[in-house]
Amino acid sequence: MAHMTDADRRRELGQQFRVDSVRMSAAAKSGHPTSAMSAADLMAVLVDGYLRFDFDAPKSPTNDRLVFSKGHASTLLYAIYKAAGVVSDDELMQYREHGSMLEGHPTPLIPWVDVATGSLGQGLPIGVGMALAAKRLEQLPTRVWVLCGDSEMAEGSMWEAFEHAAHFGLDNLTAIIDVNRLGQRGETMVGWDLDTYVARAEAFGWNALEVDGHDVEAIDDVFARAIETTGKPTVIVARTKKGKGVAAVEDANGFHGKPLDDPDGAIAELGGLRDIRVDVARPTVEATARTKPSAVQLPRYEIGEEVATRKAYGDALAALGTARRDVVALDGEVSNSTFAETFAKAHPNRYFEMYIAEQQMVAAAVGLQAVGWTPFASTFAAFLSRAYDFVRMAAVSRATLALCGSHAGVSIGEDGPSQMGLEDIASLRAVHGSTVLHPCDANQAAHLVAAIAETDGISYLRTLRPATPVLYSPDEEFEIGGSRVLRSSDEDEVALIGAGITVHEALKAADALADDGIAARVIDLYSIKPVDVETLAAAAEVTGGRLVTVEDHWAEGGLGDAVLDALADSDEPAHVVKLAVREMPRSGKPEECLAAAGIDAEHIAAAARKLVALPAHRA
Amino acid sequence: MAHMTDADRRRELGQQFRVDSVRMSAAAKSGHPTSAMSAADLMAVLVDGYLRFDFDAPKSPTNDRLVFSKGHASTLLYAIYKAAGVVSDDELMQYREHGSMLEGHPTPLIPWVDVATGSLGQGLPIGVGMALAAKRLEQLPTRVWVLCGDSEMAEGSMWEAFEHAAHFGLDNLTAIIDVNRLGQRGETMVGWDLDTYVARAEAFGWNALEVDGHDVEAIDDVFARAIETTGKPTVIVARTKKGKGVAAVEDANGFHGKPLDDPDGAIAELGGLRDIRVDVARPTVEATARTKPSAVQLPRYEIGEEVATRKAYGDALAALGTARRDVVALDGEVSNSTFAETFAKAHPNRYFEMYIAEQQMVAAAVGLQAVGWTPFASTFAAFLSRAYDFVRMAAVSRATLALCGSHAGVSIGEDGPSQMGLEDIASLRAVHGSTVLHPCDANQAAHLVAAIAETDGISYLRTLRPATPVLYSPDEEFEIGGSRVLRSSDEDEVALIGAGITVHEALKAADALADDGIAARVIDLYSIKPVDVETLAAAAEVTGGRLVTVEDHWAEGGLGDAVLDALADSDEPAHVVKLAVREMPRSGKPEECLAAAGIDAEHIAAAARKLVALPAHRA
Repeated sequence: MAHMTDADRRRELGQQFRVDSVRMSAAAKSGHPTSAMSAADLMAVLVDGYLRFDFDAPKSPTNDRLVFSKGHASTLLYAIYKAAGVVSDDELMQYREHGSMLEGHPTPLIPWVDVATGSLGQGLPIGVGMALAAKRLEQLPTRVWVLCGDSEMAEGSMWEAFEHAAHFGLDNLTAIIDVNRLGQRGETMVGWDLDTYVARAEAFGWNALEVDGHDVEAIDDVFARAIETTGKPTVIVARTKKGKGVAAVEDANGFHGKPLDDPDGAIAELGGLRDIRVDVARPTVEATARTKPSAVQLPRYEIGEEVATRKAYGDALAALGTARRDVVALDGEVSNSTFAETFAKAHPNRYFEMYIAEQQMVAAAVGLQAVGWTPFASTFAAFLSRAYDFVRMAAVSRATLALCGSHAGVSIGEDGPSQMGLEDIASLRAVHGSTVLHPCDANQAAHLVAAIAETDGISYLRTLRPATPVLYSPDEEFEIGGSRVLRSSDEDEVALIGAGITVHEALKAADALADDGIAARVIDLYSIKPVDVETLAAAAEVTGGRLVTVEDHWAEGGLGDAVLDALADSDEPAHVVKLAVREMPRSGKPEECLAAAGIDAEHIAAAARKLVALPAHRA
Repeated sequence: MAHMTDADRRRELGQQFRVDSVRMSAAAKSGHPTSAMSAADLMAVLVDGYLRFDFDAPKSPTNDRLVFSKGHASTLLYAIYKAAGVVSDDELMQYREHGSMLEGHPTPLIPWVDVATGSLGQGLPIGVGMALAAKRLEQLPTRVWVLCGDSEMAEGSMWEAFEHAAHFGLDNLTAIIDVNRLGQRGETMVGWDLDTYVARAEAFGWNALEVDGHDVEAIDDVFARAIETTGKPTVIVARTKKGKGVAAVEDANGFHGKPLDDPDGAIAELGGLRDIRVDVARPTVEATARTKPSAVQLPRYEIGEEVATRKAYGDALAALGTARRDVVALDGEVSNSTFAETFAKAHPNRYFEMYIAEQQMVAAAVGLQAVGWTPFASTFAAFLSRAYDFVRMAAVSRATLALCGSHAGVSIGEDGPSQMGLEDIASLRAVHGSTVLHPCDANQAAHLVAAIAETDGISYLRTLRPATPVLYSPDEEFEIGGSRVLRSSDEDEVALIGAGITVHEALKAADALADDGIAARVIDLYSIKPVDVETLAAAAEVTGGRLVTVEDHWAEGGLGDAVLDALADSDEPAHVVKLAVREMPRSGKPEECLAAAGIDAEHIAAAARKLVALPAHRA
């Protein structure tokens, strides 16, 4: 190797990446070797000449970040790890085996992978979050490199990333588009028309450089120019060939996601096995120490005051930001509705306006948390559905982040069903390791904001548009997984279980029932996941299994289902009447909408009366 | 009016739209008058001079379509209806009242509204679907006009629409961007830099025309040029002022989504009340009659064959397409995985390749069904999550369309968790009026494809990657809401309830249990929503309430929760053990992944044995 030029070595390294990709996918009998082969030279130049990364301290903010937005090219990433000396050839040959950290698509089970990819169009918007952290929060001269496929340029989320990266002036971000022309089943819309990608990128405010993606000297040149560019991000638009280097598959359709038919022949054609080691450069800077957190001084609301839980979210988040310098907030152009603006005013340097681009908002949160920040991202509960794939993938990334969905349910009233979040509990419950919280009063909301900041995984806080009466003392603590029994006696004949707005309706219903001589337990089930099984089982026991659940949410997958699940595998069989939104709501006053949906006090009381009249499931 | 020029009349009409917007939002005490006022002149010229629409036959494909992508400008749309003589002034004054069809954001409760809007960034991609129908399917010279806000240009879905509309050469589509500069809480990223929108649109292949959005003569000119443009869509980039015409709010921040403080003063400033009628032009063409459907000749698979349900989807869809000329298919660049390619080969003129743009795919399906077609849209189950907000809104649109998610669950194996749809049942169940089906064999899958085509609302078919044994005769019928009891006796001590891959595991478990002398009922719950309550209740009765549910899906919101819900409000209390995926899965062989998730035959049998050892909930 000593007599090799940089270019020679990089060409050889690229071939090694190809050979190892062919070998890995042959051993696994699956994988995407041709998608790795197109980008091999690009990555050879990057890791040999530009990337600064300490494999012994992968989480350090002083590292560059390397994100494979085209996660299916995982063999290329893993081949880099072998060349860097951190993965053995034996480990490489266990690619995709059960138990191997070298999964089909990269996940953070690998210590040097920050985020999972494999759902296309996510790596670049996540990279925007990482670049924001480095440039705006850390002020570190690190770079974020994102390898993108050309097929994924059809995802709108990529253009959200293009717009936001330029808007934030992220000159520390370099996107590399591997334009191999071929998607899974055929040619992309753009094909090899590199000028089109350049024109689009420039129109979105980027520096755009075309290159032959198999010419290592030309690649070196554009990387150098990317680094020199200030004030705007750079995209390298690289013309490549899928399956490059093996005639049987090179630039040929029909070989996506398949190991090569003749791996030995392919390896020979690529020049045979190599064992070149690459000495990836270390970071040259040091991170500044973070300040230690102080105690959070949460806002305090007086019992009986009328305060919207969304307002408490903003107040509490601002207070949290004062106590913890790692807390950052993002919002989707509705900060005056979600009250993220309270944080923005208090901590403008740690607030990111993400405009109406919910996918980019959640992706940026994923990127920020990957490099050590604690993000809270908010929009209307309804519009979080726009980013559902990003939330799903955040769980695969083992991400810790907080989402706040405001304006949940029909209680928003006049704006109508498009603005009513009615599937948020169901969809967020079905995210692995998630926490789902729905406070009914401002003090509870404030305490839950603080609790979320201490909770691993994806936390979701559902807030309300209307002001609701403060029920709890500001000194009361609320733990995740808890609940509150607001009315109870040993004679309770029925339990009314709600969260958020329906707690207030349930209290009114209990009053009405008391007038009829029916004792009703009222449970504020603010923690929907995890759920307080013990309190629910006790209620079932006392009431003979007579439970009424009531939620401002569709009937599927919400609070009612969480209650059923809690009692499914128990010795307390219950007769559960689920009140939920079952017809498409319409515009109207909040109280009209609650009544029309059958989830107001009157309907709760009616359901309870009917249930009490039935024989108990148990004595 | 007789002496007025076109321009004078249109200026007056624009003022009338403003006055009526001010009046409506004042009466409702909510709404977005300033967002209507910016676009009033654009719409005055459109409806007076360009739109061809028969209000008496709004569903006719010969109509132009008018979509308010900025749905919050609903008062402007409703003011148009008044001017067109189809809504009275009294009705206008009931804006946002409960029961009025004039909701906060437009919905198809209004006969002349095709699709609900209000979640920004959806109207234009839906318009792409409508324009595809007119140009590619109907060959009609109608036009699709979409009024867009500038804030929503930050949504990636808008750029998916830009790319696809150009790719399909949709010169019958005109987007009108109302660049009033101001979003909900401040200025957009682009502001009044119209050249940037033009450059982006041109880079995406559109004809782009700048205009002063308050100059009715200039507007007339650009609309005329839009109509003359062939081969590509046109975007009108209109510089406007939010709140135009009322000094207190014109081009001022802080007035989004608020009625005006002094409506009477504003009305006076706008020149007072008007009652101009506009005679919207009628279509000049006639629709061609659709051919009548013939009987569907579904594919037939022999019992014992190994066929993937995804393959059956493709075969059945192609057969359906032969019988019904209204059936169209779309896919997200994975048609060789979902087997949509079988339809594409059989009916190339009714297949739309939507590339890796799931939001645009679902939006196009919404647009296609709005004008009378029956769309089936497919991708991996995991990636349907990308379009969740579009599915949610499709329900508000009262849309009828079919979604197929392939590669569901851990049974896909090696590709790993990013590709495993594990939240699809939960999220799709929580869509209003949806149908959720998960077949376990090819004949069942084929029959369900045919059933979906006869079903209103949003239907979801979940298919599997691996081939599974054919269990049912090709002559067996499967109804939506049904199930199949595959093993049963009066002595059943436990019931095993699965769908898809877990049916096959449950059958193996029942065999193992039989070896132990335990009689286990096996239920194929292929219809997860609606669910077969009767069969489940009977199983609970026979087994003393001992039920094991097993699903290749997260534990929340899936098949298990559907079973619990079915029995919640019944006299058959059950002890339900839910087997589901509870840890983040990893790459591996399908059988390894099923075992690791605890949902294979061995785990099912173990759970059943444990449950049988417990006392029954009822004798």
